Amino acid sequence: MPELRKDPIVGRWVIISTDRAKRPTDFFREGVKIKGGFCPFCYGNENKTPKEILAYRPTQNGATSQRDTPGWTMRVVPNKFPALGIEGTLNRQAEGMFDKMNGIGAHEVIIETSDHNATLANLTPKKIEDVLWAFRDRILDLKKDRRFKYILIFKNHGEAAGASLEHAHSQLIALPILPIYVAEELEGAKNYYIFKERCVFCDLIQQEMDDTSRVVAENEHFITLAPYAPRFPFETWILPKQHESAFENSSSRMFEDLAKALKTLLMKADRVLDNPPYNLVIHSSPVQDPTNDHYHWHIEFMPKLTKTAGFEWGTGFYINPTPPEEAARFLREAEVEQVTTAPVAVAVS
Amino acid sequence: MPELRKDPIVGRWVIISTDRAKRPTDFFREGVKIKGGFCPFCYGNENKTPKEILAYRPTQNGATSQRDTPGWTMRVVPNKFPALGIEGTLNRQAEGMFDKMNGIGAHEVIIETSDHNATLANLTPKKIEDVLWAFRDRILDLKKDRRFKYILIFKNHGEAAGASLEHAHSQLIALPILPIYVAEELEGAKNYYIFKERCVFCDLIQQEMDDTSRVVAENEHFITLAPYAPRFPFETWILPKQHESAFENSSSRMFEDLAKALKTLLMKADRVLDNPPYNLVIHSSPVQDPTNDHYHWHIEFMPKLTKTAGFEWGTGFYINPTPPEEAARFLREAEVEQVTTAPVAVAVS
Repeated sequence: MPELRKDPIVGRWVIISTDRAKRPTDFFREGVKIKGGFCPFCYGNENKTPKEILAYRPTQNGATSQRDTPGWTMRVVPNKFPALGIEGTLNRQAEGMFDKMNGIGAHEVIIETSDHNATLANLTPKKIEDVLWAFRDRILDLKKDRRFKYILIFKNHGEAAGASLEHAHSQLIALPILPIYVAEELEGAKNYYIFKERCVFCDLIQQEMDDTSRVVAENEHFITLAPYAPRFPFETWILPKQHESAFENSSSRMFEDLAKALKTLLMKADRVLDNPPYNLVIHSSPVQDPTNDHYHWHIEFMPKLTKTAGFEWGTGFYINPTPPEEAARFLREAEVEQVTTAPVAVAVS
Repeated sequence: MPELRKDPIVGRWVIISTDRAKRPTDFFREGVKIKGGFCPFCYGNENKTPKEILAYRPTQNGATSQRDTPGWTMRVVPNKFPALGIEGTLNRQAEGMFDKMNGIGAHEVIIETSDHNATLANLTPKKIEDVLWAFRDRILDLKKDRRFKYILIFKNHGEAAGASLEHAHSQLIALPILPIYVAEELEGAKNYYIFKERCVFCDLIQQEMDDTSRVVAENEHFITLAPYAPRFPFETWILPKQHESAFENSSSRMFEDLAKALKTLLMKADRVLDNPPYNLVIHSSPVQDPTNDHYHWHIEFMPKLTKTAGFEWGTGFYINPTPPEEAARFLREAEVEQVTTAPVAVAVS
């Protein structure tokens, strides 16, 4: 008998097939392969992108390379085909009973590495940390612009997951509105807080750590787990163990651990699911909101294993053929290179 | 400059690209083609499906054919691989802080025609009407079962839209819960009603009929239109012009007109978009609810034109490359066979 399960944050019911659960090999798998060819994100092609906003350029022989030239390891540029425009004043208008505004926003690309053949999963933890710092740096800069209510950071890996260029990159979209799913999560988390006076994510982490059946991996600051009521097979979340409402407030020590947690998850997914295409999204509090006790930032990782889902869009009704306990077990047991956490400094009292 | 538009029912903001709007030929189009081969839904293979629940069997030479034999034009059978099981008592349980219940429900398949090479678009209006009557008959039967809160009727056309068998069919899933998107629409519609004391869909229909730029087609009882803030290019809705909260309450005259409206839309989409894969969903009030003034049933039609959308699932954030006014114009201007409405009987007072 299948099981209906409710997501404790947004209240979404999903069907979890328990009888004929799909194992990793049951999915149609067309692993992501790098094809090569001309690439505007590659080293030496800096003039093929809009002018860089940020770059990490290591000092060599006492000198740092010039902007928009080689010599970088990570580079942030405006999206050449932005979904939103950066210039102008926000103009809210009615159109009869309807509401609209001009499409003000920022759309940037984080080029994660200068190496066309690398993927986020096989960068060193230090390089992944650099990408996370770039996310933070861009958020802190963009949140000064009071027109922006939300900053969305996401990654599409592989053509099947919506990536139009194969060179490893993430994207950032700064928005004058809240995306609806984020708004629902915030509302659900707030309602839970009003009822319980506790953060729903903190409660969830506590229960998952006690139960362990949906835990994929863990380090000092982060827990990686399959959520109780996932929409998609092998959907996995990474959450900070300590309550923190916004990604950009994380400490340097946190980013170090997050880079390791992320690398571990991506390597495990590559191993278990044969280099799957995937989407990765950071869910965080709205950038203009003060630090709060009810929302807990996290990363959602969704490998694209099922070929289609148009129907789900129309209904919000999901049938997940892989119980999260099964998915977590496959990922947990996958043997990958150990990404060790640096020794923890012991506080001397 | 792109435009941000808000859906008036659920409050979802979407980005509508207005600058480089995608025309029908800009989409990657792999039209749905019928390949043939063995098919359990075909005439003569009645014993390859579970036993039929309902069939329309025209009388020939004064006799009607036997159940589960040839002689039918439309047939409803249980899904051989149901997402939910029909037997048992609904058992709601806690799992720590989480909520679950056993997967009780019905999952049926409506085989729309005995002809393997037909599509819903090229059935006669009368045959399409039969399919709509079958939806109604099954809803009226299943709603007697008080375990079911919602009955979802949908159609996946083409492999890319999730159809696993190519023979024209729709599906019905009876659920003990409300799908989240339906719950949000109901809540949005209720909130609007509290505020305005009018149905949001009735207001919307009024404005669209006055404006006409998003209207695709119209007949006596139905209007076909591109919504103001669609998530997907060429997303189209069919709504009854007069307020009605539930699909199954429609009169016989309504089904006649709906069959024509549906056929017209599907033919126009086939013409403009080269036989696209699509998803079609009926949104209606929960089956155990009394008739209400705030929710207005309708059909949502979503051709699958963009290859991927994993990212949208994670955020509820949509970028639509085709303004609905453009989509509506292409569909409106597409010349297709006239599906005439039968003359309206004039009431004699």
